[in-house]
Amino acid sequence: MSQDSYSVAIIGASGYTGQELLRYLQFHPLFQLNAISSDVHTGKKLGDVHPSMQKAFPDVVFSSHGEAAEAQADLFFLATPNEVSLELVPFLLDRGKKVVDLSGSYRLSDKKNFQKYYKLDHPSDELIRKRVYGIPEINGDKIARSNFISNPGCYPTGVLLALYGIREILPLLASPVMIDAKSGTSGAGGRVSAPGFGYVDVNENFKAYKILNHQHEPEMWEHLHAFTGHNVELHFVPHLLPMTRGILSTIWLYFRESVDESALRRMISESYAGQPFVRLLAPGENAMTANVSYTNQCHLQVTVDENRRIAVLTAVIDNLGKGAAGQAIQNANLMFGIAEDFGLC
Amino acid sequence: MSQDSYSVAIIGASGYTGQELLRYLQFHPLFQLNAISSDVHTGKKLGDVHPSMQKAFPDVVFSSHGEAAEAQADLFFLATPNEVSLELVPFLLDRGKKVVDLSGSYRLSDKKNFQKYYKLDHPSDELIRKRVYGIPEINGDKIARSNFISNPGCYPTGVLLALYGIREILPLLASPVMIDAKSGTSGAGGRVSAPGFGYVDVNENFKAYKILNHQHEPEMWEHLHAFTGHNVELHFVPHLLPMTRGILSTIWLYFRESVDESALRRMISESYAGQPFVRLLAPGENAMTANVSYTNQCHLQVTVDENRRIAVLTAVIDNLGKGAAGQAIQNANLMFGIAEDFGLC
Amino acid sequence: MSQDSYSVAIIGASGYTGQELLRYLQFHPLFQLNAISSDVHTGKKLGDVHPSMQKAFPDVVFSSHGEAAEAQADLFFLATPNEVSLELVPFLLDRGKKVVDLSGSYRLSDKKNFQKYYKLDHPSDELIRKRVYGIPEINGDKIARSNFISNPGCYPTGVLLALYGIREILPLLASPVMIDAKSGTSGAGGRVSAPGFGYVDVNENFKAYKILNHQHEPEMWEHLHAFTGHNVELHFVPHLLPMTRGILSTIWLYFRESVDESALRRMISESYAGQPFVRLLAPGENAMTANVSYTNQCHLQVTVDENRRIAVLTAVIDNLGKGAAGQAIQNANLMFGIAEDFGLC
Amino acid sequence: MSQDSYSVAIIGASGYTGQELLRYLQFHPLFQLNAISSDVHTGKKLGDVHPSMQKAFPDVVFSSHGEAAEAQADLFFLATPNEVSLELVPFLLDRGKKVVDLSGSYRLSDKKNFQKYYKLDHPSDELIRKRVYGIPEINGDKIARSNFISNPGCYPTGVLLALYGIREILPLLASPVMIDAKSGTSGAGGRVSAPGFGYVDVNENFKAYKILNHQHEPEMWEHLHAFTGHNVELHFVPHLLPMTRGILSTIWLYFRESVDESALRRMISESYAGQPFVRLLAPGENAMTANVSYTNQCHLQVTVDENRRIAVLTAVIDNLGKGAAGQAIQNANLMFGIAEDFGLC
Repeated sequence: MSQDSYSVAIIGASGYTGQELLRYLQFHPLFQLNAISSDVHTGKKLGDVHPSMQKAFPDVVFSSHGEAAEAQADLFFLATPNEVSLELVPFLLDRGKKVVDLSGSYRLSDKKNFQKYYKLDHPSDELIRKRVYGIPEINGDKIARSNFISNPGCYPTGVLLALYGIREILPLLASPVMIDAKSGTSGAGGRVSAPGFGYVDVNENFKAYKILNHQHEPEMWEHLHAFTGHNVELHFVPHLLPMTRGILSTIWLYFRESVDESALRRMISESYAGQPFVRLLAPGENAMTANVSYTNQCHLQVTVDENRRIAVLTAVIDNLGKGAAGQAIQNANLMFGIAEDFGLC
Repeated sequence: MSQDSYSVAIIGASGYTGQELLRYLQFHPLFQLNAISSDVHTGKKLGDVHPSMQKAFPDVVFSSHGEAAEAQADLFFLATPNEVSLELVPFLLDRGKKVVDLSGSYRLSDKKNFQKYYKLDHPSDELIRKRVYGIPEINGDKIARSNFISNPGCYPTGVLLALYGIREILPLLASPVMIDAKSGTSGAGGRVSAPGFGYVDVNENFKAYKILNHQHEPEMWEHLHAFTGHNVELHFVPHLLPMTRGILSTIWLYFRESVDESALRRMISESYAGQPFVRLLAPGENAMTANVSYTNQCHLQVTVDENRRIAVLTAVIDNLGKGAAGQAIQNANLMFGIAEDFGLC
Repeated sequence: MSQDSYSVAIIGASGYTGQELLRYLQFHPLFQLNAISSDVHTGKKLGDVHPSMQKAFPDVVFSSHGEAAEAQADLFFLATPNEVSLELVPFLLDRGKKVVDLSGSYRLSDKKNFQKYYKLDHPSDELIRKRVYGIPEINGDKIARSNFISNPGCYPTGVLLALYGIREILPLLASPVMIDAKSGTSGAGGRVSAPGFGYVDVNENFKAYKILNHQHEPEMWEHLHAFTGHNVELHFVPHLLPMTRGILSTIWLYFRESVDESALRRMISESYAGQPFVRLLAPGENAMTANVSYTNQCHLQVTVDENRRIAVLTAVIDNLGKGAAGQAIQNANLMFGIAEDFGLC
Repeated sequence: MSQDSYSVAIIGASGYTGQELLRYLQFHPLFQLNAISSDVHTGKKLGDVHPSMQKAFPDVVFSSHGEAAEAQADLFFLATPNEVSLELVPFLLDRGKKVVDLSGSYRLSDKKNFQKYYKLDHPSDELIRKRVYGIPEINGDKIARSNFISNPGCYPTGVLLALYGIREILPLLASPVMIDAKSGTSGAGGRVSAPGFGYVDVNENFKAYKILNHQHEPEMWEHLHAFTGHNVELHFVPHLLPMTRGILSTIWLYFRESVDESALRRMISESYAGQPFVRLLAPGENAMTANVSYTNQCHLQVTVDENRRIAVLTAVIDNLGKGAAGQAIQNANLMFGIAEDFGLC
């Protein structure tokens, strides 16, 4: 582990994800914050926009995205809208910089899906081939050798960790995987108040949205296939929780033959042996989001009805932690050869 | 419609369900509240325990359960623990009274299931044969002729309304029905602070619990079978929401052949034509709990991916309204020959 | 009490206050809803905008404000922006209609204060002289004889009820009255998501705002003076609570000589003897907003430290109930000679 | 600054405060956690009780309080009930250990007040003389030389920082100081669900409690007097917020003569020049709790109406941070000669 420090920049540091990157960087002595940008706060001091971090970063000032992209940093986190990432990633890679892109721009390989779900023309084929989809517990080696990480979506992170853990048994599925996920409101995007996200709209309310039509569904499918070789049909329904942070995904599996809970538990344990951030809960424990809030952890639980051939996986993460900024830091640690849990909890 | 008034009593009027019955009765001019009971508030004035209702019921005082059971009322709502209902229902029926039991005591026909899930000896076979399981939109005629209604559980109410609406197509299922339900905290039972239900425990938290092991699962199965004749395998996972009231159930269906969304919409519409409390949402609308809060309504939505042979039903109710007290009033209206929506919204 | 029914219209029925008026009207058999308007929902059915009320008002459609103002209704509730009320009130009064204006337009008599706090030119002097400021417990007789009620602000309602209750002792004040009030988010205005009112902004947050600079301060001063004859200096700091509805005002009083708690309790009791909606809590009870949620009630508490010559009044109301729509209905009842608590709880 | 590391123990590590101490210690490389205790979790692994910290403290096991008090640690944090602290503090000091007591046991000098508010006999006079009341921004030098810190109450911390900041002007007060404070629910004490603190009780509710009768009032008075020499009459009303963490105190001041806002701002700025954790907000900024959540910061704001001779101070802290565990770490840093902001944000 190197003890040198590295300079990092955050393009797009005013939204929830950018703010969470800053929160983690406060505790990461090896990453020095060199530049931040925002399209709405250009010229303001960081501490005036995010008062809780004024102490950690007393002198940092927001620049424009373009200016920040020219900064003398070793690594750039992009917590930007898709259009901005599509433009800045090639620019930064051409400058020889390391990039962790937290937008959705480079997560999908399939051009048609990208067009369908993101309403944007597909980015460069070359960059898609080049990017590593960054889930360190699954493809940490590739991440460590890459300069360009596409940081996974919040929903896919927990779901892929759960399904990868039991990948051996996926060929026994008798029906598609049903993924019923629930997210806190900070997962819904940027900082601007959007219609439907006002306090009175969300408080004391719970709803399903984008039923069978969310952009994270093809992302889950593609990377589950890439990681396991299994072509698993899966369906996804997200829901919006009246709370700020946390995702719980309930994953329903129906098998062609009886499955053994202890076997599934063993598969998961072995898949993540030695991994600092993935934890299989003890039998009977309930996965709950509060236990992973403000952390980079993922807790998994599996419950099996052997006679009925049903297994239910539950996975919890902090959508801003393991589902975004925490995992981005973890990826960055690997890219610099630092211990992957450095500065994380 | 009769314009006479009827006297009613509530046994167990200090918990959330009893309190909600009182809230509805404030607006029901034909039901006169004659007696209420509580095991913890005996002797206190109603307005001292539920201050918001002091105006509506200035003179009502809590008696003991036993005393209230002797009251001169035409109908008794029992919002009591299972043990108390098991004891009081036969007593009240012997007195020739009408009873709506909101406990779980008479919902299940199967003795083994009752023992397994409620840890109690099975109640009288005769009473189980006699009771009508009260979902007015499905078996309103039987309710109108009965003196003894077992008021359905909160989770089963929304789920049964959804599945009954598409009962024609149930034979085409290719796999078990997966029911992923989420409830506000007031569904969790009585008024006493239980471990795990403290404010700090629940706020900013979301969890799954009793995975594949909740007492409402056999209740759903039994009555879906009774109502439709179809023996449908179904599995149930409940979750606890950081909010007070509301249930959303997401019901996953996988078919052997392609299904047509418009056909499913038509089935639901026809099933509930003229029903005042069940509403099929327009295509694209999201079911959300706030739209049914403090009402006796159930909103249903169905989304189909025809190629993938998947349908997702979402059903929302207020767990204290259509999921408990509202439905109890609706049942009581029918039992007296009053319009079923009298005093309800 | 007349048993005729009256037709009413709501101008501005899409915001929180308009929606709450509708909620109350569901249970008010003597008021028939004749027209509603909205500037954003014109042409839509009421049930599509407020789904929980589709049952109560199946056929009502939003018209434009102008169209609704021409409706054949006996009474018009205006839950409109100040500019709209300023324009429509004279029009409706000229048509010979009864008006309850829930905006701030006619609450202040002082032109300079109106300009300072509302940034609008002062409305007609004649209408200000004509309007009755509607707190039924204080000036119910005037309300009953008036055609034009200015419905009080949410903060002033609770504060004025508290201070009016102890008006005899106000001359003994040794320092200004300090009013520290806390409101749920639905008090903040219309339905549109405003900056600072997004879910993530408000949840798990609490803040003071408009310190010593809120438009309700001169409203409190003016009407306390008008109601009691006492010119009492008072200061006001509002705060925003992470919840939807409810206001608690803590009112600090410091006296020149020792005061007697029982005397203050007696003053309050006598001030509101026989009033259905104002309740003095028993000694030691804590005023709490949940006890008045979804009601038109106001709960008052007074705590005195006799040696230290300090009294603390706490007043709770539902800002949408007694603080807006409930009180508007109560005023309307009086204007028609109906019992003032008709349709209210 | 020493780069040695120190071993610390936490007696009482299962409540909210103990848990927050652990959360901070995760990021404090110089403090090594040596022992933790709990009366309910003895024998369990830390990670099983506080799953989010399993990674940071994989091997730590809860012992009994008595056992932990014998541990080989340099410093002991006591997050224990008052009775336990009264017993363990003398034991630990006799062993020559450094102690930071987070209970209320040693905060008050006055025996009668201690008896009145805590219902306990007064602790040793000698220990009261010996203890330093630990607010580092005010008496950091004494803290650095002490072995025994009484960590301040959550309410007093923010209030004392605010009032100490303007101490020069306190002699001009024309009436008592009115302190209207609002706290999140985690300030209410231990982890056990207490009556009135259930989720449904607190959610969508706001209440005043212990009006003019809270044990933190004499604590504020005593230490304001000790810190400033001014004998200031003050009154205190706390309120309970429907959120987990955060305190905002609104402090009302009425002066005998006109006061100048810029003078008050200058006093505060000078009082805390160079202090890393106290920040005076810019004019017009609203103090809000979310900006200090999960930090050791205190934000102050002052608003003056010069003509009316009124000043309103608002102070926000995280009750678990600067109001408890954060300040305890800050005190411990000083006791070891470490920079006071080490490991804090």
